[in-house]
Amino acid sequence: MAQLDQTHDPKLESWLLSANGHSDFPIQNLPLGIFSPRGGIPRGGVAIGDRILDLLEALAAGHFTGEAAKAAEAACSTTLNPFLALGAGPRQALRARLSELLAQGSAEQSRVETCLHLASECVLHLPACIGDYTDFYVGIHHATNVGKQFRPDNPLLPNYKHVPIGYHGRASSICPSGVPVRRPRGQAKLPDALRPGFGPSRRLDYELELGVWIGPGNTLGEPIDIAEAPGHVGGYCLLNDWSARDIQAWEYQPLGPFLAKNFATTISAWIVTPEALAPFRIPQRSRPEGDPAALSYLMDHADQREGGLDLELEVLLLTPGLRNKGLPPHRLALSNARHMYWTVGQMITHHSSNGCNLQPGDLLGTGTISGPDQTSCGSILEATVGGKNAIVLASGEERRFLEDGDEVILRARGRRDGFVPIGFGECRATILPAA
Amino acid sequence: MAQLDQTHDPKLESWLLSANGHSDFPIQNLPLGIFSPRGGIPRGGVAIGDRILDLLEALAAGHFTGEAAKAAEAACSTTLNPFLALGAGPRQALRARLSELLAQGSAEQSRVETCLHLASECVLHLPACIGDYTDFYVGIHHATNVGKQFRPDNPLLPNYKHVPIGYHGRASSICPSGVPVRRPRGQAKLPDALRPGFGPSRRLDYELELGVWIGPGNTLGEPIDIAEAPGHVGGYCLLNDWSARDIQAWEYQPLGPFLAKNFATTISAWIVTPEALAPFRIPQRSRPEGDPAALSYLMDHADQREGGLDLELEVLLLTPGLRNKGLPPHRLALSNARHMYWTVGQMITHHSSNGCNLQPGDLLGTGTISGPDQTSCGSILEATVGGKNAIVLASGEERRFLEDGDEVILRARGRRDGFVPIGFGECRATILPAA
Repeated sequence: MAQLDQTHDPKLESWLLSANGHSDFPIQNLPLGIFSPRGGIPRGGVAIGDRILDLLEALAAGHFTGEAAKAAEAACSTTLNPFLALGAGPRQALRARLSELLAQGSAEQSRVETCLHLASECVLHLPACIGDYTDFYVGIHHATNVGKQFRPDNPLLPNYKHVPIGYHGRASSICPSGVPVRRPRGQAKLPDALRPGFGPSRRLDYELELGVWIGPGNTLGEPIDIAEAPGHVGGYCLLNDWSARDIQAWEYQPLGPFLAKNFATTISAWIVTPEALAPFRIPQRSRPEGDPAALSYLMDHADQREGGLDLELEVLLLTPGLRNKGLPPHRLALSNARHMYWTVGQMITHHSSNGCNLQPGDLLGTGTISGPDQTSCGSILEATVGGKNAIVLASGEERRFLEDGDEVILRARGRRDGFVPIGFGECRATILPAA
Repeated sequence: MAQLDQTHDPKLESWLLSANGHSDFPIQNLPLGIFSPRGGIPRGGVAIGDRILDLLEALAAGHFTGEAAKAAEAACSTTLNPFLALGAGPRQALRARLSELLAQGSAEQSRVETCLHLASECVLHLPACIGDYTDFYVGIHHATNVGKQFRPDNPLLPNYKHVPIGYHGRASSICPSGVPVRRPRGQAKLPDALRPGFGPSRRLDYELELGVWIGPGNTLGEPIDIAEAPGHVGGYCLLNDWSARDIQAWEYQPLGPFLAKNFATTISAWIVTPEALAPFRIPQRSRPEGDPAALSYLMDHADQREGGLDLELEVLLLTPGLRNKGLPPHRLALSNARHMYWTVGQMITHHSSNGCNLQPGDLLGTGTISGPDQTSCGSILEATVGGKNAIVLASGEERRFLEDGDEVILRARGRRDGFVPIGFGECRATILPAA
């Protein structure tokens, strides 16, 4: 796991004033992404306050040497796959150097200032070319809530507490925050209908998830040991696994979700590094006393001690009605990454335990991370109990599922006494009417 | 659909004698792939008899002009994705020109001969970088046979005859024919066990499938109409969807197969074009009288008239015992692509019907294509009825599932009166012991 060092010092401030105070991107964060400055080609950058540090320009200006230069070189082209492939060493060296360059009192301030772009004038892209995308199901409250709607007496299937359940998702339709999502059409069958129909989904939903970027990865046939798994995490993002519940209910047996999910997945564009999240590691606490022990290939002392994450996860809804009345977004849920039943390390080790090869730039989703009560539901299916209970908004509007023009906004925030809070930036998208 | 033209003339022969007679690759076939000649870098090539025509060299020698040159240029680098993106026009122009160049009596014979490599001295690679891999389940006899093992009275789920069922597979672990497959380890739970265990799979299986290479594809949010679907097929291959049945039975609910499948998928390395298969198109016959009509978005007159494929599909098993005694491979099954319940066009249209974007070089699997009886089972799970009935081999060996050292060989062949038969080359791999 990443260690605490001087880059986490809560007294550290940047000469860039917007990075201090309440930004998602203080000097303690330093996430990487791919952006285009006005009229420029895509390249790697680092979010700091309301700016983006241009790695292409900073590299050309000679700000990096040694391992940090190796990382910056790998991060300055059009995707971060080469950077993710390098792993922790160069990434940590780059972080240490970026922290020096951007810190209050840096002798290089004036030379670094010329490498900054105003973030609001840049376009953010997917940070990597995603080879494979796998979605897990480790949010135990979500699995329980959804299971209850189908099997009230026995919501969790027998394998849930033994197997980090996952399935393959669609890589091609993953979009960065801000790209609108078109309501899918598809087959669905109403409970009392004789035959299915085809049309726009009537039960469109979001899912609040963390995304995990794979770093170096493994060769086909060579599993990743649980003790080595953290070394294969390249970083984190927010992930909205948009879901059409009516399509899902009709299609998912026996092979799982397909068209109910693969019309769009939205992710936040910044890769938040394992180093930035080091202060927010917690013991893996979500497996209650009395649950079966995990099989030994999934167990590691360090992973149990610090494989959990204490991250606030929030879902906000901005409807046309709220927007027209100048009202703020409605908070649909406040949850926390600590509600994951399996750690990210366990997800990686399980995924590769049969020899399956993970590659730099692959993306894992955690599955929906709901909390234990109705204020922390990571999907509207849970919040409205399958559409039974409407959510009433300050605009007077009601929602049982998402409607056209609705915008869903996911946010994440690490917060811990004695540390500077960091955020992930937003993961947001607006729903367009069906074609 | 591709039309018949002079390239299909059964009287057409090549000046390359090995292409005439019983080759998988007569002049009527002309499949494309990526190969490395001895000591050379990967590049595009065309299979002809026992040789490979080097497109890089043939292009440099000036053998192509116009649309054919455009196709050859797109096909001469390290992947065929750019070639697949071009679609039917340039592909057909290239086929027509290759047919001229390789035909008996060609004035260019001596200049083309210098562009040929002996196939046995070349290495074949994956023909494309596979962005996403989707596996369907359109073999209705397979779905019925497998369903019977779980639900004897009601083997097919209610959605089967309405929805071309599919799920996402793993792209990273797809290998070309010849690459050995390591037996996966994984979690399984014996029926009478209290808890699952972790170890090498004891119920390793093959699955006989056709693969479909996607050509141009669609933009996110813009479905492919059923009338346009054939234009998005770039070609076909054989596909062995290796499956660990014990892992699958324990993990697959509720989200479908994952580690039971993603340890390896083997494909034949040549892309057999839609043009080469034109003589083997048949009406879509597998939907019996009395079955529900497909929803209108899946129905097209031309697709119903010629969306089926008459291709013999064969599975052979070569065990250590057979090999040691010099005995030939044992035929496990002879099936036919006509047993697909849905056409390839229906698979493509359904896949994109929610706006999901298909991209050049994406791969679709049909799902296991079994025939109606025990001699045409596309998986050993079906052939041995879940391991109950052993297969007895000429070597005296018995098989209920696959054992280490076993080699599974898939073959496909188009055969029709008045046409020259064509083959796909082999899709074969040997099982290595678990790590």
